[in-house]
Amino acid sequence: MPTLRLALSQIDPWVGDLARNSDEVVRWTRQAVEAGAQLVAFPEMALTGYPVEDLALRRSFVEGSRGALVELAGRLAADGLGEVPVVVGYLGRSEHASPRFNRPAGSPQNCAAVLHRGEVVTRFAKHHLPNYGVFDEFRWFVPGDQLPVLRVHGVDVALAICEDIWQDGGRVTAAREIGAGLLLVVNGSPYERNKDDQRLELVRRRAAEAGCTLAYVNMVGGQDELVFDGDSIVVGADGEVLARSPQFEEHLLVLDLDLPTAGRDHTDGLLLSDGLHLVRTELDGEPQAAPVMGAPPAEGRERLTAEVAPRISDEAEIWAALVSGTRAYVTKNGFESVLIGLSGGIDSALVAAIAVDAVGAANVHCVSMPSRYSSRHSRDDAAELARRTGLRFRTVSIAPMFDAYLGATELTGLAEENLQSRLRGTLLMAISNQEGHIVLAPGNKSELAVGYSTLYGDSVGAYGPIKDVYKSLVFRLARWRNEEAERRGEVPPIPEHTITKPPSAELRPDQVDTDSLPDYDLLDSVLARYIEGDEGRDAIVAAGFDPAVVDRVVRLVDTAEYKRRQYPPGPKISVKNFGRDRRLPITNRWRRG
Amino acid sequence: MPTLRLALSQIDPWVGDLARNSDEVVRWTRQAVEAGAQLVAFPEMALTGYPVEDLALRRSFVEGSRGALVELAGRLAADGLGEVPVVVGYLGRSEHASPRFNRPAGSPQNCAAVLHRGEVVTRFAKHHLPNYGVFDEFRWFVPGDQLPVLRVHGVDVALAICEDIWQDGGRVTAAREIGAGLLLVVNGSPYERNKDDQRLELVRRRAAEAGCTLAYVNMVGGQDELVFDGDSIVVGADGEVLARSPQFEEHLLVLDLDLPTAGRDHTDGLLLSDGLHLVRTELDGEPQAAPVMGAPPAEGRERLTAEVAPRISDEAEIWAALVSGTRAYVTKNGFESVLIGLSGGIDSALVAAIAVDAVGAANVHCVSMPSRYSSRHSRDDAAELARRTGLRFRTVSIAPMFDAYLGATELTGLAEENLQSRLRGTLLMAISNQEGHIVLAPGNKSELAVGYSTLYGDSVGAYGPIKDVYKSLVFRLARWRNEEAERRGEVPPIPEHTITKPPSAELRPDQVDTDSLPDYDLLDSVLARYIEGDEGRDAIVAAGFDPAVVDRVVRLVDTAEYKRRQYPPGPKISVKNFGRDRRLPITNRWRRG
Repeated sequence: MPTLRLALSQIDPWVGDLARNSDEVVRWTRQAVEAGAQLVAFPEMALTGYPVEDLALRRSFVEGSRGALVELAGRLAADGLGEVPVVVGYLGRSEHASPRFNRPAGSPQNCAAVLHRGEVVTRFAKHHLPNYGVFDEFRWFVPGDQLPVLRVHGVDVALAICEDIWQDGGRVTAAREIGAGLLLVVNGSPYERNKDDQRLELVRRRAAEAGCTLAYVNMVGGQDELVFDGDSIVVGADGEVLARSPQFEEHLLVLDLDLPTAGRDHTDGLLLSDGLHLVRTELDGEPQAAPVMGAPPAEGRERLTAEVAPRISDEAEIWAALVSGTRAYVTKNGFESVLIGLSGGIDSALVAAIAVDAVGAANVHCVSMPSRYSSRHSRDDAAELARRTGLRFRTVSIAPMFDAYLGATELTGLAEENLQSRLRGTLLMAISNQEGHIVLAPGNKSELAVGYSTLYGDSVGAYGPIKDVYKSLVFRLARWRNEEAERRGEVPPIPEHTITKPPSAELRPDQVDTDSLPDYDLLDSVLARYIEGDEGRDAIVAAGFDPAVVDRVVRLVDTAEYKRRQYPPGPKISVKNFGRDRRLPITNRWRRG
Repeated sequence: MPTLRLALSQIDPWVGDLARNSDEVVRWTRQAVEAGAQLVAFPEMALTGYPVEDLALRRSFVEGSRGALVELAGRLAADGLGEVPVVVGYLGRSEHASPRFNRPAGSPQNCAAVLHRGEVVTRFAKHHLPNYGVFDEFRWFVPGDQLPVLRVHGVDVALAICEDIWQDGGRVTAAREIGAGLLLVVNGSPYERNKDDQRLELVRRRAAEAGCTLAYVNMVGGQDELVFDGDSIVVGADGEVLARSPQFEEHLLVLDLDLPTAGRDHTDGLLLSDGLHLVRTELDGEPQAAPVMGAPPAEGRERLTAEVAPRISDEAEIWAALVSGTRAYVTKNGFESVLIGLSGGIDSALVAAIAVDAVGAANVHCVSMPSRYSSRHSRDDAAELARRTGLRFRTVSIAPMFDAYLGATELTGLAEENLQSRLRGTLLMAISNQEGHIVLAPGNKSELAVGYSTLYGDSVGAYGPIKDVYKSLVFRLARWRNEEAERRGEVPPIPEHTITKPPSAELRPDQVDTDSLPDYDLLDSVLARYIEGDEGRDAIVAAGFDPAVVDRVVRLVDTAEYKRRQYPPGPKISVKNFGRDRRLPITNRWRRG
């Protein structure tokens, strides 16, 4: 049985930055080669970054990606790294028309290629395209219909891309049909809570279906509103976890895999299940004798102990996701520092603590912006957070601006409350313009869901680190982060009083959140069912919740959703008159050619 | 040759409001029946409104639509309107799984049905799904594979939905294969400049391909960021325009069509081109003898003179689109009045003139918000506009607020300029909250494209009526609207000085737009090539433009696009942690069931 030394490069590509991503592929391939790897794999669309969204529709970007791929193959060889086959994802285009999708030849495809000895030796496109949730891949791509199989050091390695294993059949079944020794899957699989468990279960099931070892390499980091958690995995056909990368870190996973000798010589072009046809690529390389652990090195190699990184706790995982997402957004947007309005309340305190972990206290600028309704303790709590973390802190009162508005026009009730929030948003943007920090917004998911937030006020910001964190989880994370600091012998960042006092917007005298909203634990239970669970009002009541509370929450959510749609970001332009602005990812690296 | 009296109901459905749309179908069917119609057609998804975007993914909405359809059939019969077959678009679901699209049975479909004698006699789904530009239909729907053919009064009527005729083959070819006498197409085809010409040419070509008369019914009005121009058309197989509805108006087009007697009796289920299979529906009704124009009424009817509404001028068409879009946005969002910041410049003047035409002067509230840099003439020009149009006008100086900010923190240069714009945005939102008007944003496409605009400042607003209008077209429309008023013997709304003075943001002393931007005619020529034309820098230079100007414009657009992406609308929540918010249309009528 031959042994193949496989390297999975769990990296963080930047969308649009072909030069940087190429450099990274070379750098990580060099490390893999130094570790003796015989096959190296990078994530889905590692060369272009992922997701490229509507950038896929720019011909010049597709051509840029294709050119960069050929260049990369040459560069690896010129750097003495050409002997190891490298699997790398990129943005390509179809050779043939796809009549069922009404798309001509030359349409964009989510591709991967194998680079070897200076050449692109094979290319293929994702077969199953995800088109739900955050994915719109039928918009961007046409599917591929090949099963690429690489014969390397005597082993048949079938290749697949991400969604190919989330759907039944397709390349998984086809890999079994041709008797592959390894199914290697390159991925750009975004983080969701508890997705690591779901992913492991999936990978095990697909390994069993393919009847061979399955290697799964994922990306890490953040891109726009997505976070990638890594969690690359190798499992045997029997479901045994052979290796696993840590979560949320760039990592090179290298391991020796005992794999069956390629036996059957199928004809190239053979039609397999689901309309796939076989495309074989024969690479030079003799079957490798298995090195024995601890034995004298055979051919200069000792058998590697495969690493199985432990899973981190639920809170640690969420915290890492929040920190990764924030860091990626700030740095990929070309900023070094952030600006946060610090109220003394728990939301902005948590955002500041996340920012400190993401970009360092010296780069976190905070402003306390008291009004006539701000309590003494709010200002003290904000200052105490600054003292504990070492972030940059200043105080600017909004009282004079507030008085100027009230003197100019009659404002009462909600208009007066919202005004204070908007004066703070305006002050943050002014300081941001003056000093060059990117503004982070403090809103949590509970208050955004029910509309307890001011448009152009506390919603001001480029990125909302906790916009998908319910308020009850905000409290849990604040406590966890403090405990974590204590475990490390550090000062807990968040003042105890910030965690224990009753939440208040402080926009009118003696206001507390529970004036307007149910208790957060109750609210969040209903919200989770209504939003994530897509349960209707009746189903939630049937689950035992007070009908009056459910009706109230449902009404709040629907109204808030409606109002968010009423006031979209402000006018956008579009390429067609009256069309919608298309989604584009954040990248300042790519220009129309 | 039988004659069929056809009615095309060019209406404006409201997304999500099933009850209202059902009422409208009944009301318009009654009118059609009173006009003697023997077949009535409504636009694509008229029952749900169009586009429903991600509402399609809510099961409860799909079931709501299906239930409303059955109810509507019963109601038409109960109201004595059951004898006429009614073709109406709705949101349905698939009976079978669609493996090629990885979608199970029960997936949403863009459907139409025929209602007759209290029953839904046939249902079918759009065959070709558009998935480009503003369309994402592979996200929402799975395609249908039937060719529905209705035998009514001796004529075989093949049915199709919108994109079915924008793609080659499919139902057009299939209609010819079965020898249809009429191809009836229901549409939700959004307005673009000059699309009426493009549409007519398409309809003529498809009629020739189908070898029969083609009737095309479109919707009017506006929904979110789309505008629908109506322009329903009937053409003969020889390309002759037999009838055409006016643009941008609800309209019932009724005409008598001489159509071939259905001859061939094809087997139900027959496999036709492009994988379509025939589904026949036989409705009672004898072939109708042709009434002769002016002759004594045969069977109580006189032949109708078909109406061919004339096309309106280019400027009138654009103006109607801007007014329709604005009116729809305001009213479909449940507002009666709008609020606009009036600077005295041409952009806000044009927006105010559009708003006056859309919702009436009494519902247009404007505020002049001078700062220390505002010129005397700006205030005068704003007041003059108010005087000419009769809109509601007030003045609130932002000088005290500006001074309060400058006293609190150091702000210079761009930070100081943006501050003034944001103070105005905050004031507009405060008045909006206090008085209940919806805010319109004044930005034009040229300045938005190059980023000559302030986030949370002049970009504040729910809707930007001229966000897709280049500045040179802003001038042209202002002149056209004034001339149009003169032609009607009315006061031209826009003060002459507003049109003739050099454009200025007035955010610093003696500022004019040309300090920062090329002359607008030149700028707009480059922008149109770069944005709409998707031409690269080199192609634009090759077309004869100054390379320095092209480089500058390209850099401005790329930077602006990048910055718009940096600061999205502010934090959104999503149903999946870290997922993107999905698009939902504006509707306050539909709640999760």
